[in-house]
Amino acid sequence: MTGETIIVINPNSTVAVTEDIDRALDPLRFADGPEIVSLTLAEGPPGIETQRHVESVVMPLCRLIEGHDNRASAFVIACFSDPGLHLARETTAKPVFGIAESGLLSALARGDRVGIIAILEASVRRHRRYIRALGLESRLAGELALDLGVLELAEESVTFQRLTEVGARLRDDLGAEVLVLGCAGMARYRARLEAALGVPVIDPTQAAVAMAIAAVRLGAGADRQRAAE
Amino acid sequence: MTGETIIVINPNSTVAVTEDIDRALDPLRFADGPEIVSLTLAEGPPGIETQRHVESVVMPLCRLIEGHDNRASAFVIACFSDPGLHLARETTAKPVFGIAESGLLSALARGDRVGIIAILEASVRRHRRYIRALGLESRLAGELALDLGVLELAEESVTFQRLTEVGARLRDDLGAEVLVLGCAGMARYRARLEAALGVPVIDPTQAAVAMAIAAVRLGAGADRQRAAE
Amino acid sequence: MTGETIIVINPNSTVAVTEDIDRALDPLRFADGPEIVSLTLAEGPPGIETQRHVESVVMPLCRLIEGHDNRASAFVIACFSDPGLHLARETTAKPVFGIAESGLLSALARGDRVGIIAILEASVRRHRRYIRALGLESRLAGELALDLGVLELAEESVTFQRLTEVGARLRDDLGAEVLVLGCAGMARYRARLEAALGVPVIDPTQAAVAMAIAAVRLGAGADRQRAAE
Amino acid sequence: MTGETIIVINPNSTVAVTEDIDRALDPLRFADGPEIVSLTLAEGPPGIETQRHVESVVMPLCRLIEGHDNRASAFVIACFSDPGLHLARETTAKPVFGIAESGLLSALARGDRVGIIAILEASVRRHRRYIRALGLESRLAGELALDLGVLELAEESVTFQRLTEVGARLRDDLGAEVLVLGCAGMARYRARLEAALGVPVIDPTQAAVAMAIAAVRLGAGADRQRAAE
Amino acid sequence: MTGETIIVINPNSTVAVTEDIDRALDPLRFADGPEIVSLTLAEGPPGIETQRHVESVVMPLCRLIEGHDNRASAFVIACFSDPGLHLARETTAKPVFGIAESGLLSALARGDRVGIIAILEASVRRHRRYIRALGLESRLAGELALDLGVLELAEESVTFQRLTEVGARLRDDLGAEVLVLGCAGMARYRARLEAALGVPVIDPTQAAVAMAIAAVRLGAGADRQRAAE
Amino acid sequence: MTGETIIVINPNSTVAVTEDIDRALDPLRFADGPEIVSLTLAEGPPGIETQRHVESVVMPLCRLIEGHDNRASAFVIACFSDPGLHLARETTAKPVFGIAESGLLSALARGDRVGIIAILEASVRRHRRYIRALGLESRLAGELALDLGVLELAEESVTFQRLTEVGARLRDDLGAEVLVLGCAGMARYRARLEAALGVPVIDPTQAAVAMAIAAVRLGAGADRQRAAE
Repeated sequence: MTGETIIVINPNSTVAVTEDIDRALDPLRFADGPEIVSLTLAEGPPGIETQRHVESVVMPLCRLIEGHDNRASAFVIACFSDPGLHLARETTAKPVFGIAESGLLSALARGDRVGIIAILEASVRRHRRYIRALGLESRLAGELALDLGVLELAEESVTFQRLTEVGARLRDDLGAEVLVLGCAGMARYRARLEAALGVPVIDPTQAAVAMAIAAVRLGAGADRQRAAE
Repeated sequence: MTGETIIVINPNSTVAVTEDIDRALDPLRFADGPEIVSLTLAEGPPGIETQRHVESVVMPLCRLIEGHDNRASAFVIACFSDPGLHLARETTAKPVFGIAESGLLSALARGDRVGIIAILEASVRRHRRYIRALGLESRLAGELALDLGVLELAEESVTFQRLTEVGARLRDDLGAEVLVLGCAGMARYRARLEAALGVPVIDPTQAAVAMAIAAVRLGAGADRQRAAE
Repeated sequence: MTGETIIVINPNSTVAVTEDIDRALDPLRFADGPEIVSLTLAEGPPGIETQRHVESVVMPLCRLIEGHDNRASAFVIACFSDPGLHLARETTAKPVFGIAESGLLSALARGDRVGIIAILEASVRRHRRYIRALGLESRLAGELALDLGVLELAEESVTFQRLTEVGARLRDDLGAEVLVLGCAGMARYRARLEAALGVPVIDPTQAAVAMAIAAVRLGAGADRQRAAE
Repeated sequence: MTGETIIVINPNSTVAVTEDIDRALDPLRFADGPEIVSLTLAEGPPGIETQRHVESVVMPLCRLIEGHDNRASAFVIACFSDPGLHLARETTAKPVFGIAESGLLSALARGDRVGIIAILEASVRRHRRYIRALGLESRLAGELALDLGVLELAEESVTFQRLTEVGARLRDDLGAEVLVLGCAGMARYRARLEAALGVPVIDPTQAAVAMAIAAVRLGAGADRQRAAE
Repeated sequence: MTGETIIVINPNSTVAVTEDIDRALDPLRFADGPEIVSLTLAEGPPGIETQRHVESVVMPLCRLIEGHDNRASAFVIACFSDPGLHLARETTAKPVFGIAESGLLSALARGDRVGIIAILEASVRRHRRYIRALGLESRLAGELALDLGVLELAEESVTFQRLTEVGARLRDDLGAEVLVLGCAGMARYRARLEAALGVPVIDPTQAAVAMAIAAVRLGAGADRQRAAE
Repeated sequence: MTGETIIVINPNSTVAVTEDIDRALDPLRFADGPEIVSLTLAEGPPGIETQRHVESVVMPLCRLIEGHDNRASAFVIACFSDPGLHLARETTAKPVFGIAESGLLSALARGDRVGIIAILEASVRRHRRYIRALGLESRLAGELALDLGVLELAEESVTFQRLTEVGARLRDDLGAEVLVLGCAGMARYRARLEAALGVPVIDPTQAAVAMAIAAVRLGAGADRQRAAE
């Protein structure tokens, strides 16, 4: 253990989602690597589905970051709308990664055009503005939504079936060569979906944490610290 | 040790450069993480400075990849022109990362506009075409060259002084908020330069290896393998 | 009076700024046109200068909109960072205009490339992301900041002098053919600056209110209402 | 009445179209607002349907502008190909608005991506070049034509039916969140179409006149004039 | 002689310019190639310097094209604003080439980024809109004007000196790797300027005629005609 | 004969293809024009179908260019992936044209949006990257593949039928106004396809040779040489 800690924040208040996210990060936990800690934003809504949800978590999320700043080497905001990312970067001097930004950038190293699988149709418009702000629209194949109800999402087999259908449409009709899961809590389907579709599938929280590990291990502060050990 | 191996290929034939590259990857070597092995392309030129050098290494580089395919979980091509990246991806089913692509994508998670420090003016034009091909030009602040001779590059203090000057111009005159070292062998200056300039500085080989670690640990194959352990 | 009301919200808490904004809207008040009412966001900071200020006003601003929704035919958010614009559009069915968006779009009808005069250097980066999100970067000549302290900004002659210098640089060095004041409270300088520089100068709050008048007078609801009178 | 006059020019010679245009501007006529006068270009063709029609009206249109320059505070060119817009701006020092440019810019303040309803398929290509010249293509959802014959266009119910079909395709298949009527003479359908489709529909002549009102009321000249009153 | 004729139209009325243009086409006259005939537009202004000049020649230019349509296999419009290009393409079924379009496209096969040397500053803005309409702005290094008076332009040595200065700035300060003469009548300087600056210099009329030769020799009609011989 | 020679290199080793290419250049052979010589790259694969094929010919192709440099006035690389184009330009001071680049640029002078007919689906992705690198993606209507097997391609009537189908889809579904044959050896179908589809069809080798003729006849060297004759 190096004393380096990456704090992953689930900005919704559903602890089960935080636990799912946390479990999916196990492959990135190394014996002598940064500790990875997942936190739940108590003030968040049960799920982040609307622009209101996104905006409502910004201030409490940044307060949470402030409260853990001493302890953290880097932060990850685990919601595909990257709520509060730019404020978080103003709040702490530590690197902050948004999972949409990190997931999309990581995907671009795995295929020419990226397809995004959103949970809800309503998110697609919000994501489109964001992708334009990132200047990445020329690499976007498209984004399609699962549009499943809560009960259907609770059924793993139904959800996987729908992920496969939507992913196949992104791949075949829109030309996506790599897919990004447009949501924080679906890592459990990633490997199976990748196997089913034959194209890389990126879980954005995993991608962001991987980038955080690099930043933590390679950052100026870290370098100096290790040099001093 | 997991049995996972990331093979980093220095496509020039200068072993001292490979050793420099390899040393800079130590912070990404974890006790229970993927092994990181750096190889030198014997057929390469002493340094990759021209379009001819870039093209000349493509075929031998891909043969080297083929020769190590059984052993590798992922490959990194450690030259900022990403020679043979697309052929390498056709040659092996393992993920292949080019350090220019990975370095630029990683930088975009650290600042709004990226400045590149090239060794030679002649590379700038080649890189510009490549950045357009990547669809990332709207995020490029600019690229400037050190334009130092071989003797000057051998003097660390001269090189660092010049890196600082060029980096400051990218930051102040062109608005770069993050810098990428446009070359595989300069990681030793990264932390110092970051400290001197006050903006993140990305070593592209480190960035690519970090992405490779994520891909190796999180890839479909890896998942299946670990599930079977 | 038509019973139509446009509500302009100053998201900072400085009433004197609201009064300045309100006064600048007099030319758009017509005897039989929509009423234009300017409100101050009591919960806002004294001025909106940082990303934190921008984010902090989103939720109270949208609550203010909700509270006045019955009474309003359209809303204008009078801060050049367009805080909460997308949430506001989800909060009310009435048209909502952000002054940055409206100011830039209006400017594009007056000149080929737009220059923005920001108050603070720190806003330029935030605006740049926003202009990319709007897909308008190919029409942006550039943005330069006044970078005046509070005391200097209080001196009208100092401020005007600096506006003229910065505007001239945008026009002459960066090729701007139309300028936008990148702030809500500077309408008093608009006409003088336009006269001094010889290019159109857009006050973004005026531009947004003009768009709001059109939307109110021409909107489907308004049409039906007038048809029924 | 302020003595300010906005002159709207219908560049085709069909007086009935001018009358339709003029009637649609009533909501923008205020007791103490600028006078709005609609003129017919006697030299124009009966309708502007081809590139030849567009080009043929440029010189007579600009002569008409010259002839009315003393009297006008601003001009609007009421044809969705914006014929002669740039020459008009060189001909008079008063602001000149083209309805395509103004309609598209106004639409961008009402929805993320714009759909255009053209009368004729042949116009789509011409408009596409123009939208590229405006630098707005990243915000264009698409353009579809009614492709109705003259007799069908004369039947209001047939035209409205077709507008609804084409608008629904733009909204549902191409993702338009706001529509622009790609023609000067269809304002009578605007409100009904907006109600039928549930997305804002912009009449471009109304949009241009609203921008002209703002320019006239807020322009440097106007300011000085009012100051002197 | 094949009976194929390319008609090059100088849209200004200065016969001496037509003669200059015509002389510069000699290297493209082949014993058994298309005849190349240069015409002067009698109705044109002495030179095309303003938007008004551009617009004023459109209709007479297209009438001239109509009058020669039987005789011509292709047309070239020899003015760097490409006046009437789209109407010309609607007027005749023969291929029509504008020298700005052809010159820029030809230049893109000779260097990564193009610099344009305009005669007058006032043209730069017009050209910028056009280059955006062509979708080529990402390849534009910049455009600079000679801004010489008529008398200075009459002095060959003065003009060449100024061409060299402006070309060097485009090459050195703006990164142009190929230059285009932004005017029809300067072919006499092309070779000397290319030799002086060490980068390719494109005369746009020559480029357009070369494209016309290809279209004439390779066009469907021509193929069928030759097959029938 | 002028002593000027354009060397066209077929980078695959199939002499029959070279002969096809060569025959298609006859319309560009003028009695007193540049000699056009077509060479076969003996080291090339029988056809260039994969990224490996593309990369494998780069070095031998440039050696061939070096070997013929004294004799050539310009070179054309006759494969739609433009293999080795940038190295070739570094290898010789003579102008070098790639047929993809030249074909696309020439097409842009014939229609607003270009459709490409590829032989194989696998090439589409490679071409897409290249078109982005060229900065021309805003003018691309799309690319579709014939996806015919070798035996089917050997049947002229089958191939033509398929070309017509794919070309019609590019024209009707994707809006292409000009087509480019995305392959060096299909010139025999060009005129028939153009006649069948009613839009210009560009054979890229013909387009590149036409550009080479212009460069050879108009180049600085050529000018000086002819002046000295």
